[in-house]
Amino acid sequence: MISIVRSRCPLVHCITNYVTVNDTANAILAVGASPIMSDDINDVEDIVSISQALVINIGTLNERTVRSMVQAGMKANELGIPVVLDPVGAGASSYRNRTVDELLSKVSFTVIRGNLSEMAYINGSASRTKGVDSSMSEADADPVAVASAVSCKAGAVAAITGRVDTVAKDGRIARIYSGHLEMGRITGTGCMLSGIIGAFVGTGEDPFLMTANAIAAMGAAGIDAYEKAGHLGTGSFRVAIIDALSLMSDAMIKEKGQLEFD
Amino acid sequence: MISIVRSRCPLVHCITNYVTVNDTANAILAVGASPIMSDDINDVEDIVSISQALVINIGTLNERTVRSMVQAGMKANELGIPVVLDPVGAGASSYRNRTVDELLSKVSFTVIRGNLSEMAYINGSASRTKGVDSSMSEADADPVAVASAVSCKAGAVAAITGRVDTVAKDGRIARIYSGHLEMGRITGTGCMLSGIIGAFVGTGEDPFLMTANAIAAMGAAGIDAYEKAGHLGTGSFRVAIIDALSLMSDAMIKEKGQLEFD
Amino acid sequence: MISIVRSRCPLVHCITNYVTVNDTANAILAVGASPIMSDDINDVEDIVSISQALVINIGTLNERTVRSMVQAGMKANELGIPVVLDPVGAGASSYRNRTVDELLSKVSFTVIRGNLSEMAYINGSASRTKGVDSSMSEADADPVAVASAVSCKAGAVAAITGRVDTVAKDGRIARIYSGHLEMGRITGTGCMLSGIIGAFVGTGEDPFLMTANAIAAMGAAGIDAYEKAGHLGTGSFRVAIIDALSLMSDAMIKEKGQLEFD
Repeated sequence: MISIVRSRCPLVHCITNYVTVNDTANAILAVGASPIMSDDINDVEDIVSISQALVINIGTLNERTVRSMVQAGMKANELGIPVVLDPVGAGASSYRNRTVDELLSKVSFTVIRGNLSEMAYINGSASRTKGVDSSMSEADADPVAVASAVSCKAGAVAAITGRVDTVAKDGRIARIYSGHLEMGRITGTGCMLSGIIGAFVGTGEDPFLMTANAIAAMGAAGIDAYEKAGHLGTGSFRVAIIDALSLMSDAMIKEKGQLEFD
Repeated sequence: MISIVRSRCPLVHCITNYVTVNDTANAILAVGASPIMSDDINDVEDIVSISQALVINIGTLNERTVRSMVQAGMKANELGIPVVLDPVGAGASSYRNRTVDELLSKVSFTVIRGNLSEMAYINGSASRTKGVDSSMSEADADPVAVASAVSCKAGAVAAITGRVDTVAKDGRIARIYSGHLEMGRITGTGCMLSGIIGAFVGTGEDPFLMTANAIAAMGAAGIDAYEKAGHLGTGSFRVAIIDALSLMSDAMIKEKGQLEFD
Repeated sequence: MISIVRSRCPLVHCITNYVTVNDTANAILAVGASPIMSDDINDVEDIVSISQALVINIGTLNERTVRSMVQAGMKANELGIPVVLDPVGAGASSYRNRTVDELLSKVSFTVIRGNLSEMAYINGSASRTKGVDSSMSEADADPVAVASAVSCKAGAVAAITGRVDTVAKDGRIARIYSGHLEMGRITGTGCMLSGIIGAFVGTGEDPFLMTANAIAAMGAAGIDAYEKAGHLGTGSFRVAIIDALSLMSDAMIKEKGQLEFD
């Protein structure tokens, strides 16, 4: 599927946080798409109009950018451009919760990707988010049940990333067993993944399959990068993840992505 | 020429985007200058007053920072400090276009550097910018003609980067054949270059020559980095570009920069 | 001491600049803590309430974020959460000076870390800050005297980083001789250090000892990274610093940290 991204080179408009924005842009470029970051209310309608996907990430949200997220999302809906939501830290603060609620009520999302705590918040479950990391384990909630419920509620592909990643839509379930625990020691692997999902769904192909393949690509990159650089430390591991994404192929995703459909 | 940057260590004030700001700061440090990022209206006059160059990059512009750009630019003009403009995405949205127009009408620039689409917008040509990447090729417009026209219109050194880079001022033309296509697969090589141009013109030497040499330094770094790390992937390639800039010398620019004057 | 950070994994809330925020987050993760960046006035009280430390860095301050810094700092004080101040560029502009004054008057800090110019400003001495780098040398002012005075004035651990680093509190003095001059050629080593100090004091252990050990950890990482990657250039050196932090142990800090108490 990544070969389709590379041949179509979709333009991916991101309204995202300033912590991991550079890695997100480089990850989108690495898989063969083209990123554009723009978050001003005066700019986002024009930019989303020339894009093939919009990614909204609330990592460092503020009043100015939340307005832009809503406006860009509504414009993308009007134009039929797929929209990805990364609800960073949902469950950790009432402002993040209110913002996610507002986004879900005003924008129709194609894909929602988060960790188990964030997705449990969207599902209406009690959620205990430790900052931007998930504080819930699979003992607390079943990822398949939560993903299915979020998918149903939002009419979107729902992806929960964790030890095993789960993608759900309309009764279809995919699981991705690749990735590496050490990815949690680098900031932004989740944000990069949301950007990559934007690149994959920006091709216009089936969002469920593209989301599953995007996660498998990131998981394969994590395995490959850990083999090459994990022993060197987290700085080298991070560089190796971008390296692996930039060399990723359909064959490598098949070989190392560990993607299975129920 | 880079030896002059290293010996004088100019302070370069940047009002730039949050996507590539870290790479821009590290690139400025790598060539021997000192970066300072500051974008609040209360801060920019003081900061530009202690600086030797100002770099304005509109990559993630917003109403707050555009006001700061105008104010800092006007103060720099008053003090005779060189100002570099990177009109990121000009031609891609009406807000970016209006901002570039406002900056050009209120601030006198020493150097303007962009890709062919962005510079064609400034030249008043019809421009089709694909996000932040140029959508125009040399078949659409002649870089020498566009650079000469922008230079004449703005009274600035005009630099257009692309497959071949062009620098124009008062009938003088320089071309730089170095660089590597793969640099387009990393975000920020253009922004880094604009920062480096700020470092070079911050020496107080002739802006035309310094701009041409700054581009040649970046081009030589791209070639060197690709030789060392291109096969490893774009993460390593990006690290190697900063490495190469930090080790760059006048001799290396002469050997690998492929700078020619008409 | 780093083993305590790794076992307790404190959540460190950072309100910091957008230049070095990614490195700061990765440095905090590398030493075993968990970063969360949040700077909106609607969000910071909730986020600081679930955190074990707050780090305030004024590198790219603006009116919106300064209000958030004050509010988060006051909330942290109310809850007894340690607060670290990095007064980036104090002495370089009147807005930075006013902001530092406001923060010091409204928030009680646990640790203040800066270079000699910045700390001399806080001490009320005439300060000549060259941008964000110190323009003062030990010939201009005695770091032990300045640190002791700032500590006394603010009731905080005061740390001055430079050729030799100095930590002062209540008559106790620590000096750290490790680190490497080349660290000044990378942006953000100071910001990363302030983040790491947040991680160390977020354990709840003695702030004087934890600050001294955090600086020694960074110093040891700088030495280790320079040995491994210094000859490759500043891009690789930067990656190697994060690598070294991620592999840092109590034994390595003891061996290479060069920490001495008066």
